[in-house]
Amino acid sequence: MRLSELSRTSGVPAPTIKYYLREGLLSPGVRTHTNQAQYGPGHLHRLRLIRALLDIGGLSLAAIGDVLAALTSGDTGPDHLPRVAQQPAPGTIRRGTDAHATNEVLALVRRQGWLVSPGDPAVEAAAEVLAALFQLGRQDFAERLDTYARAADTVAASDVDGLDRRTDPARTTETLIVGNVLGERLLAALRRLALTHHLRGRVSPVRDTTPA
Amino acid sequence: MRLSELSRTSGVPAPTIKYYLREGLLSPGVRTHTNQAQYGPGHLHRLRLIRALLDIGGLSLAAIGDVLAALTSGDTGPDHLPRVAQQPAPGTIRRGTDAHATNEVLALVRRQGWLVSPGDPAVEAAAEVLAALFQLGRQDFAERLDTYARAADTVAASDVDGLDRRTDPARTTETLIVGNVLGERLLAALRRLALTHHLRGRVSPVRDTTPA
Repeated sequence: MRLSELSRTSGVPAPTIKYYLREGLLSPGVRTHTNQAQYGPGHLHRLRLIRALLDIGGLSLAAIGDVLAALTSGDTGPDHLPRVAQQPAPGTIRRGTDAHATNEVLALVRRQGWLVSPGDPAVEAAAEVLAALFQLGRQDFAERLDTYARAADTVAASDVDGLDRRTDPARTTETLIVGNVLGERLLAALRRLALTHHLRGRVSPVRDTTPA
Repeated sequence: MRLSELSRTSGVPAPTIKYYLREGLLSPGVRTHTNQAQYGPGHLHRLRLIRALLDIGGLSLAAIGDVLAALTSGDTGPDHLPRVAQQPAPGTIRRGTDAHATNEVLALVRRQGWLVSPGDPAVEAAAEVLAALFQLGRQDFAERLDTYARAADTVAASDVDGLDRRTDPARTTETLIVGNVLGERLLAALRRLALTHHLRGRVSPVRDTTPA
């Protein structure tokens, strides 16, 4: 298809597609005339991937470039997969952690039996959030850590299980990135729904009404 | 304390604090001289709240302004709490949903017995993520929705339970906002840890090593 059709099908404006082409996020089409190129289903898929990571995942274009480079390198060895899973969460700015919060997270990791390095970036990320919660007087989160961890473990086990049953091994890395970044947003949206439900139950104990 | 000490204790640069004061995110100190004011523990707490929502939660200053206005209004009625829980996730740009994804989410809500309105913004948010996953060939997420929802429900029930046991009712709204925004980031970090663990188990089945 031509660029205009790629734009129509994907819903991404043509100038934006041209920008992704110039930045190397999207591979060039097959040139048919001096000023014309043809694009295939692979381009459409890549474009959807870029937009999902950008719009929903909240990743920067630079972070997306790194992710796509990992895809193109085709490196799906044992060490690579966990590294890809570490794509940092959007909006998280590195702050100081405190030793107390870090120790709580490391103790949690041991209780869960998770085989992760104490220097794992996600240990620091969790400790940073916990330190901020403690600073804001939410010490109660220390005792709720295991509930959070068990929920996280259930979801992650399901994600890796979904990975195992995928037929196309060449797509494993992409599957993992998509599941990691978008799965996180899905879990967050469902948590907001569940929170709304439980808050309603809390403020009005009568719960006989069936959902619409 | 004076502004310089507030800056030292909080780690927030003085010009930034002055900016928050001008924007009304932080209430003025008690003026002691023409060019001097005193700030108390309430200012320090508010400053920590702003920074946590900004740095960790990834909220914009405008969104934080809305959150703080809700706190100041002191409105903690039954309808207000669920609305506060709806503070949108950072980095989520409104995209089109498709009917298929929306129906999947509404069916999930019914299966979970969640008492939420079909027009709840989080229904749309979840449908948007699901639509993007489907577009990227991750149809398998349809069958994993219940696993995600049960995990979300467990965490949300624990959050509301934590809310019930808080002693200071004047702080309920803040407690909810902090738990909602930061709890989401905590869950995401723990999910990345669990994902790393399960991926390691997948690529190297020998799991005899005890965690460090």
